[in-house]
Amino acid sequence: MKVCASLPKMKLPGQEEFEVSSACENVPTGELDSGPGSGPSPDGPSDTDRGELGVPKDPLLFIQLNELLGWPQALEWRETGRWVLFEEKLEVGAGRWSVPHVPTLALPSLQKLRSLLAEGLVLLDCPAQSFLELVEQVTRVESLSPELRGQLQALLLQRPQHLIQPTGTRPCQGSAHPREASHSEEAPLKEQRQNPLRRKLPPGAEAGIVLAGELGFLAQPLGAFVRLRDPVVLGPLTEVPLPSRFFCLLLGPSTLGKGYHEMGRAVAILLSDPQFQWSVRRASNLQDLLAALDAFLEEVTVLPPGRWDPTARIAPPKCLPSQHKRLLSQRREVQGSSARHGALAEDRYGHWPQAPSPELQQTGRLFGGLVQDVRRKASWYPSDFLDALHPQCFSAVLYIYLATVTNAITFGGLLGEATNGAQGVLESFLGTAVAGAAFCLMAGQPLTILSSTGPVLVFERLLFSFSRDYSLDYLPFRLWVGIWVATFCLALVATEASVLVRYFTRFTEEGFCALISLIFIYDAVGKMLSLTSAYPIQSPGYPAYGCFCQYPDLGGNESQWTRTEPKDRDDISSMVRKVLGDFSSVLAMLLGCGLDSFLGLATPKLTVPSEFKPTLPGRGWLVSPFGANPWWLSVAAALPALLLSILIFMDQQITAVILNRAEYKLRKGAGFHLDLFCVAMLMLLTSVLGLPWYVSATVISLAHMDSLRRESRACALGEPRSFLGIREQRLTGLVVFILTGTSIFLAPVLKFIPMPVLYGIFLYMGVAAMSSIQFTKRVQLLLMPAKHQPDLLLLRHVPLSRVHLFTAIQLACLGLLWIIKSTPAAIIFPLMLLGLVGVRKALERVFSPQELLWLDELMPEKERSIPEKGLEPEYSLSGDSEDSELMYQPRAPEINISVN
Amino acid sequence: MKVCASLPKMKLPGQEEFEVSSACENVPTGELDSGPGSGPSPDGPSDTDRGELGVPKDPLLFIQLNELLGWPQALEWRETGRWVLFEEKLEVGAGRWSVPHVPTLALPSLQKLRSLLAEGLVLLDCPAQSFLELVEQVTRVESLSPELRGQLQALLLQRPQHLIQPTGTRPCQGSAHPREASHSEEAPLKEQRQNPLRRKLPPGAEAGIVLAGELGFLAQPLGAFVRLRDPVVLGPLTEVPLPSRFFCLLLGPSTLGKGYHEMGRAVAILLSDPQFQWSVRRASNLQDLLAALDAFLEEVTVLPPGRWDPTARIAPPKCLPSQHKRLLSQRREVQGSSARHGALAEDRYGHWPQAPSPELQQTGRLFGGLVQDVRRKASWYPSDFLDALHPQCFSAVLYIYLATVTNAITFGGLLGEATNGAQGVLESFLGTAVAGAAFCLMAGQPLTILSSTGPVLVFERLLFSFSRDYSLDYLPFRLWVGIWVATFCLALVATEASVLVRYFTRFTEEGFCALISLIFIYDAVGKMLSLTSAYPIQSPGYPAYGCFCQYPDLGGNESQWTRTEPKDRDDISSMVRKVLGDFSSVLAMLLGCGLDSFLGLATPKLTVPSEFKPTLPGRGWLVSPFGANPWWLSVAAALPALLLSILIFMDQQITAVILNRAEYKLRKGAGFHLDLFCVAMLMLLTSVLGLPWYVSATVISLAHMDSLRRESRACALGEPRSFLGIREQRLTGLVVFILTGTSIFLAPVLKFIPMPVLYGIFLYMGVAAMSSIQFTKRVQLLLMPAKHQPDLLLLRHVPLSRVHLFTAIQLACLGLLWIIKSTPAAIIFPLMLLGLVGVRKALERVFSPQELLWLDELMPEKERSIPEKGLEPEYSLSGDSEDSELMYQPRAPEINISVN
Repeated sequence: MKVCASLPKMKLPGQEEFEVSSACENVPTGELDSGPGSGPSPDGPSDTDRGELGVPKDPLLFIQLNELLGWPQALEWRETGRWVLFEEKLEVGAGRWSVPHVPTLALPSLQKLRSLLAEGLVLLDCPAQSFLELVEQVTRVESLSPELRGQLQALLLQRPQHLIQPTGTRPCQGSAHPREASHSEEAPLKEQRQNPLRRKLPPGAEAGIVLAGELGFLAQPLGAFVRLRDPVVLGPLTEVPLPSRFFCLLLGPSTLGKGYHEMGRAVAILLSDPQFQWSVRRASNLQDLLAALDAFLEEVTVLPPGRWDPTARIAPPKCLPSQHKRLLSQRREVQGSSARHGALAEDRYGHWPQAPSPELQQTGRLFGGLVQDVRRKASWYPSDFLDALHPQCFSAVLYIYLATVTNAITFGGLLGEATNGAQGVLESFLGTAVAGAAFCLMAGQPLTILSSTGPVLVFERLLFSFSRDYSLDYLPFRLWVGIWVATFCLALVATEASVLVRYFTRFTEEGFCALISLIFIYDAVGKMLSLTSAYPIQSPGYPAYGCFCQYPDLGGNESQWTRTEPKDRDDISSMVRKVLGDFSSVLAMLLGCGLDSFLGLATPKLTVPSEFKPTLPGRGWLVSPFGANPWWLSVAAALPALLLSILIFMDQQITAVILNRAEYKLRKGAGFHLDLFCVAMLMLLTSVLGLPWYVSATVISLAHMDSLRRESRACALGEPRSFLGIREQRLTGLVVFILTGTSIFLAPVLKFIPMPVLYGIFLYMGVAAMSSIQFTKRVQLLLMPAKHQPDLLLLRHVPLSRVHLFTAIQLACLGLLWIIKSTPAAIIFPLMLLGLVGVRKALERVFSPQELLWLDELMPEKERSIPEKGLEPEYSLSGDSEDSELMYQPRAPEINISVN
Repeated sequence: MKVCASLPKMKLPGQEEFEVSSACENVPTGELDSGPGSGPSPDGPSDTDRGELGVPKDPLLFIQLNELLGWPQALEWRETGRWVLFEEKLEVGAGRWSVPHVPTLALPSLQKLRSLLAEGLVLLDCPAQSFLELVEQVTRVESLSPELRGQLQALLLQRPQHLIQPTGTRPCQGSAHPREASHSEEAPLKEQRQNPLRRKLPPGAEAGIVLAGELGFLAQPLGAFVRLRDPVVLGPLTEVPLPSRFFCLLLGPSTLGKGYHEMGRAVAILLSDPQFQWSVRRASNLQDLLAALDAFLEEVTVLPPGRWDPTARIAPPKCLPSQHKRLLSQRREVQGSSARHGALAEDRYGHWPQAPSPELQQTGRLFGGLVQDVRRKASWYPSDFLDALHPQCFSAVLYIYLATVTNAITFGGLLGEATNGAQGVLESFLGTAVAGAAFCLMAGQPLTILSSTGPVLVFERLLFSFSRDYSLDYLPFRLWVGIWVATFCLALVATEASVLVRYFTRFTEEGFCALISLIFIYDAVGKMLSLTSAYPIQSPGYPAYGCFCQYPDLGGNESQWTRTEPKDRDDISSMVRKVLGDFSSVLAMLLGCGLDSFLGLATPKLTVPSEFKPTLPGRGWLVSPFGANPWWLSVAAALPALLLSILIFMDQQITAVILNRAEYKLRKGAGFHLDLFCVAMLMLLTSVLGLPWYVSATVISLAHMDSLRRESRACALGEPRSFLGIREQRLTGLVVFILTGTSIFLAPVLKFIPMPVLYGIFLYMGVAAMSSIQFTKRVQLLLMPAKHQPDLLLLRHVPLSRVHLFTAIQLACLGLLWIIKSTPAAIIFPLMLLGLVGVRKALERVFSPQELLWLDELMPEKERSIPEKGLEPEYSLSGDSEDSELMYQPRAPEINISVN
């Protein structure tokens, strides 16, 4: 079914900005997001997709703090903190690492660090080749007597204690016995090599090591900051045997509080900052180093002491601030106030105009779009099969196969009921297999999964009752409707009508989605209520009603097909979890069926033919062109066909727009015209064979894409995996539909499925789709006192009364559509859907473009007209910096509803 | 039922510290927490309970930022931010106030502010009596020409625009027309007086007003900071007509970015900091002001720019950092490192030893504790009735009455079943009324609500089956048991045995609680399963099983008794919500009954006599002392009575300890001995009358206390209400039980309640109690990979393997108890419960005191022995500052389970 607007329609900030900043020479482009809608980690693990601008990307830095403890009796070095993106502290009592959290500092420790570094030793591009050499270099300080120097060197060479935490078993600590280092011992220790942390760091990662502590025999503080020319593995100094690039030593006489501990943390946090790291990798003297520190200080966020407990641990944010925004703000400072307003405009409106995809640009030639689509797609055709050679595709096939079969059963069963047996589950399976496979072979977007989804099903029911009321022969009539629809769709392809999809804003999508959801809910409840009178006592409805949403929580129900890919234990368990979640509706169905047969309830069951022949008795596989109908009906069928064409066009194209969104990072491009062409041809085929009609299904296609995500493998602690793209190919879909075809022989098993279970799934789908759209949130706002309203972005920018007005208009449209649907004029409701686009256009007279920008999106013309208008005074006030950029971030492919 | 450990057993940090810091002269004691376990707002609204140390408390400060916008064409002042505890920003586009959030600053704006103030005008104790005078004083700066001065004065006197947001309706903005101020117009405007914000600020609150903005005609920045000698209402300058104490002006030529906006915010945030505010109220010159700013800077928390988006809004923390901790850390800095370890020890171990309550100190005389209790309580007796004269008590009565009736029905029904009709619902009602009312009149802790709770019910069932197996006459046998129990309890009172409750640690409480919960769950499930065979088709269980936990979410079910107190709309709606939540089980019961009768299911119903006579046919209200039993049975009854005495002692005293915890801030003290005495007397009475036995019920008593909370009325924006104490009195309980007594005539209605509904409530209670104890969390840890474990304090301090060992021992104890309960030796299981205390004592040989401190609590002897031991080196590392103080904060009276 359609949940067009169920996916987060996030605005993408700064697509243009990126072009600007990447052209700027003195900018760490390697740190920048690699393009529009890129993942949340600007400085995440390196992968081949990064650094695409030709600038080599800086390696990831693993930073470790070794502290000197036990002064004066039992001096020992112990690792007490580590950083990649976030901070992990050693929980000494518990002997484990804390959860990764956002590091916080006290300001004085940064200031003390600054003065210590300013007076201390700074070696940039130090040529030391071993830890011994490094120690000699660092201790060559005038203030130290030779005796002290010797003591200090011995102390520095003492082996530190690491907490290496193997997964699942007890942590083992390094040997506590101090020892003198010799050169031969600088090879990595066994415990270092076996550290599971190593697998989480990408190849090429470097280490930064900070040594800090109180050392009573020093008369004055000793600070040293070293950047090694060539990174060197410094023996057992770091818990993972990475080559170290940075080395920092902070020792001194006893001070108040945790002075050196905090200064050590300050250096580590500085080094973990991408901006500081970039600067310090390129610093040529002490001044550069201090300037980098000052630049860091300029940008820190300060929390007041009375309102925030400094010891509270802040969980890592879902996505990190993008580094190019920081750069931009720095550039802004430099360029002065004249550039300021421009920059603001860029920021605020940076997320639009979204450049229309090249697939949606009009050629002006007949079938020009189709030809372009075919040409573009042809070049990728061989790779569409080669790219499928990855184990991930195997699990994707299993996943989508189950979803498709559920779909075929659900919609087939309901279609059979709606058309009084003119079609049924057998046709559904056959049609899904044939249409799906053909589409995967030919289509512009082969990741699309076809389905005989809700709106078409609703239309088919209307068509059937119409032909029954006028005693028409249904399937021949339907054949002509199909022929006409194919013709009209061909005309739409010829005239490149698909470029009009740019006028489908969220208003239209949500209106469409809300209507269909309501129909689902209404029908499901209605059917259930009608059953209570037919089957009064057994009350088969209850379990199906109230408990569906609970079933996914039932754990331990590991089905055999989740064991296909042997990975490591943690991965599998989270795989299993995800799959259980994704297949909640399959599980719910199985449970419902099990309960039904266990209790032996007398429920109506799915009607399935026992042989491979059409569900309607007495018809062959080919529909006769006229049957008992008069000849002119083949012409009259053009009228309903026109309406159905509108419906199919809207349904297909809204889905296609969603599937081809920029945040999915598709490389092979879309094919709007080609897709519509395929749908038209399949319309013809299924009409001739008397099979259900098919269009693209949003949610199941998104699930397909989701199961084919490519993600960065190495994953720094606390960092979410970054999304690289989708394995775009035709093979998974093809195999899924071949399997579906062979599942026709499952039909005898299917007759055990009670209809109420299918209604339950329908109800769930309707409710889930309803609850996932912004419209529903706004309807809730109507009833909510201002105090309890969530901190939505749109509420920050649009007066509440305007939000309510917009919602009220949408509600009115929905009401009108519902009324039309319920009267004999129902058949024209696709026209009314198109009317939604008109209403949206008219709203431009009621709402300001700024308001529409937050409530909806802008239509093509307006998009172009606004940036020139400039900013009104009040908007310069609430400039970009007030809104967290995090709120705009594309949440990237995420499926709300499991299986449609 | 018992959920002893379900309430957060939070450790209270720094109870001793407080005494130290309050003795320190140069400390803003008015800002300090007012005592152990005080509310979360050290600088919250003033109330009479604060400032109890004799130091007058500084008034609350409301701070407002008026910004100058529209340079150069349309200059206007607009309020763009306001602060009390947290920050609220004006959402310009939406025309509303943002949600309150933790203010964040960029460091440079604080530094710029510092230099502007250092060069600017600072007037402390300015004698201005009106805004006009103030403006004249502020603009008397040499750098201004007379002409500019005039312009500036006119500008400053221009009326600012406020966004005044009345509840529920559209916000109205102040007039946009600039005007010249005259003295007469300085009276508060209508919109100011009607501002609903005014009601939220306590009487005596003062205002601080910050004016900031770009003013192109100024050649150089103009900064002025004024503290008025006497606070004055500055006309329409502030949105609420409060007298202003502070006034700050930050104007200057155009600069980069939002310089003045951010500096204005910086001043406002500084003023909203209690520490800075305290200093600046007492500053006598510029140096003091700058020193206060520097002290603020010393303490800010810094978030690194690459890991935290500075525009993200941080929700107000549940509780604020306590100010005396800040002071302590400052003192520590001053006193130097010699004092450091002492301070650490104080912090770390400050939350224990919790001084034993005076009620638990042994007198050494026979009945000495009882005499003391009576003496202490007698002095409060008149006030126990006078203090009930508050409307809140009325709603508390309604609330607790419903809970008590539900309790009486549930336990009465189950007791009737357990004893095969020897007691029933009628006895339950009568017993509850008589015992409850008597207890309220006599007890040491009259807020206690008695109930025939789980453990006693379990024992009674054992006793009944024993007497049936040996063909004894149950009620006479039971009478002798009661007589012996009363005797033993009297002996316990005489020997002041209640002081032993200090040995009941969480280990014991949770063991007890877990066992009882498991019995509840096992019985409920067992009963349901046995029903499925007796009533095979109607399956009455399903709704009761799966759906109970959902019912509380059903909104809109406003029962008539929630309409008793006319308050304002928002309050009532949240009242209604809370009540719906609290009465989820009553609602569930009603729904279950409704469903049952609607579907006409043939379920077993509650057995209720139709007349007012004992449920057992043929007995009078007085139980005959021997009946058909041999005489020696009255002596033999001493053995089960001994066991029951142990059970009652533990049950009663664990509950009493929980009810009298320090965080409830009870003023009238506890009465452990008196309470036990009353229970013993009621034991005698109920045994003679053949009524159920009663002990204190934890959860319902806590609900009672919760409904009688006294809270600070005025509530700064974003601040949680602070808890002042409980209305301690005897009247509410008394009235509740009188009402319960009259409800005996409800009995005819009760026979419509199906037993499965009662089982469902039992199941729910068992599951809820189980899930609220720490033991359950630790059992979950056994199965959880380290990565997914929550950030529990105990996991930070105790190695995982030790946590698992502790859990395993608890599990083994529980298993043993369960086995004993299930064998014929069941009757001795109270002894085994006592054995738990012994096991806990033995654990001191297995676990270190530090580990037990985190896993459990310490027993009395150990408490005293540890502080002398000093700190081992590794503990000085993970000193106090690593753990957020917030995690220790008492969550204060909060009820997890609605009604027991």
